[in-house]
Amino acid sequence: MPDSHLGPPRETPLFGRLVIVGMGLIGSSIARAARRQNLAGTIVAADRDVDVLARVRALGLAEEATADVAQAARGADCVILCVPVGACGSVAKAMRPALAPGAIVSDVGSVKAAVMAQVEPHLPKGVHFVPAHPVAGTEQSGPEAGFATLFNGRWVILTPAYGVEAAAVDKVRAFWEGMGSAVEIMSAPHHDLVLAITSHVPHLIAYNIVGTAADLERVTQSEVIKFSAGGFRDFTRIAASDPTMWRDVFLNNKEAVLEMLGRFNEDLSALARAIRWDDGDALHDLFTRTRAIRRSIVTEGQDAPAPDFGRPREE
Amino acid sequence: MPDSHLGPPRETPLFGRLVIVGMGLIGSSIARAARRQNLAGTIVAADRDVDVLARVRALGLAEEATADVAQAARGADCVILCVPVGACGSVAKAMRPALAPGAIVSDVGSVKAAVMAQVEPHLPKGVHFVPAHPVAGTEQSGPEAGFATLFNGRWVILTPAYGVEAAAVDKVRAFWEGMGSAVEIMSAPHHDLVLAITSHVPHLIAYNIVGTAADLERVTQSEVIKFSAGGFRDFTRIAASDPTMWRDVFLNNKEAVLEMLGRFNEDLSALARAIRWDDGDALHDLFTRTRAIRRSIVTEGQDAPAPDFGRPREE
Repeated sequence: MPDSHLGPPRETPLFGRLVIVGMGLIGSSIARAARRQNLAGTIVAADRDVDVLARVRALGLAEEATADVAQAARGADCVILCVPVGACGSVAKAMRPALAPGAIVSDVGSVKAAVMAQVEPHLPKGVHFVPAHPVAGTEQSGPEAGFATLFNGRWVILTPAYGVEAAAVDKVRAFWEGMGSAVEIMSAPHHDLVLAITSHVPHLIAYNIVGTAADLERVTQSEVIKFSAGGFRDFTRIAASDPTMWRDVFLNNKEAVLEMLGRFNEDLSALARAIRWDDGDALHDLFTRTRAIRRSIVTEGQDAPAPDFGRPREE
Repeated sequence: MPDSHLGPPRETPLFGRLVIVGMGLIGSSIARAARRQNLAGTIVAADRDVDVLARVRALGLAEEATADVAQAARGADCVILCVPVGACGSVAKAMRPALAPGAIVSDVGSVKAAVMAQVEPHLPKGVHFVPAHPVAGTEQSGPEAGFATLFNGRWVILTPAYGVEAAAVDKVRAFWEGMGSAVEIMSAPHHDLVLAITSHVPHLIAYNIVGTAADLERVTQSEVIKFSAGGFRDFTRIAASDPTMWRDVFLNNKEAVLEMLGRFNEDLSALARAIRWDDGDALHDLFTRTRAIRRSIVTEGQDAPAPDFGRPREE
């Protein structure tokens, strides 16, 4: 578990005007956490979907809510892009005229190199770009799905480019630490490789097996659903994640995902061969090693120790 | 959700002498549930591991606890094999001399055709063999890991051979229904195919990706663990399941597992190709379809509706 946890709210806000572009699960969680921890004087929500904006107003998540990203960004101390990674470039372009020197721009994208390549060219001189990725989320989407403790006890990775002002990086770090996260800094390409194996390929194979199961002729969909408690249901949770977000992740982290998928496939072929040739020792050895990794994840506070993730039991 | 749920305990036990061979997660859960629901007059625990037997006695899970399976089986009304599927044949052989005509033998193996082939030849005439598979479990092992409600609201599949006495099948059905399960009957080969996709291949790819992640050179194990909340940690739960049990499952359901794995691989190749060639629509279509399957699993009561499986949140 990262050391940092939710402390008491700040006495004075970290940012005067905080603009959140995209009010889904992540954006709305930031709004809630920033409010609760007094990280921003004014919270401004921007979203191109007027229905989302109406829900944001009804939930009372922001002081202002607008579909006009340039209007939102005017006078901003910090703008955080919480849109699918494929949309970051066009949002940056749209807000460009409104950004004042000294403003900080950040994002929450699951891919960093592609987002940096798309966003940087649009930012005026004197604007600090500090890309961020909170490694947290659920399978649910929309402003109702967010909650203030989503980032508490989770890691956030920052990937600032060479030469970005240290004060801006420190401020973004303080922002996430204020929401209970622990912060690590690494290069964008390394981030994309690490996340390919810890997040992107797991999502890909979860989506894939759920698709395979749905398409069988000799096993009905009703059977798949009924007997899913044998393991399959664990995969369906992440295969229920937001389709647009994940389409963009795969298209924008192609090389790393395909590289890690290649490794996965090699290992899977070896495993299939062990099954075909009755190599029980090879299977037993792997299954023993993997158990130890689970233990470390629980010890490090990145998952619940209770069996079945602590799923509620029927009594 | 299956209709059946834990009702009040029976007024008179269903079986006089119930013998459970193998007191791990499943065996010890059956002992607890049978006791609580008054399904057996006497519960006899057999296990070849004397340490397990000592823990069974300390937990008070059975009236008798012995390492001698023949002694346990003497006078049994019902014997349930709760050992790894590769061990069922030798256990059946060992208890053969002790089994009286009219006794019911059942099991809980995740593979049915191979278990039937291994057990049937050893059973004396007049003994009824009703193979069963409760589709329930957790990633934990041992007699301490069991609990009385493990089977409540879960499905149990029976795969009796042609000609098995209906009264014996009905009794095994009543036993599982008494523990809150819903029962379905199907052929052993169909069972093995259904479970290959809903349980065995999911376990295989979970074990595999956890192994792949552990073996990378360019991403450290510490990074994998820290950033596992991006999806990877979901896989580690089932990759922490009992190594011996799962080795035996794969070796004993080889054809169906390799067939389903072939389908999985075909689909995964298509998905990799869609990523490589920027076919965002194909990705988005699949990711939308898979979301609907998750919804059905939740609607049917086979998983928790809360985000993140209802994992406890840090406040």
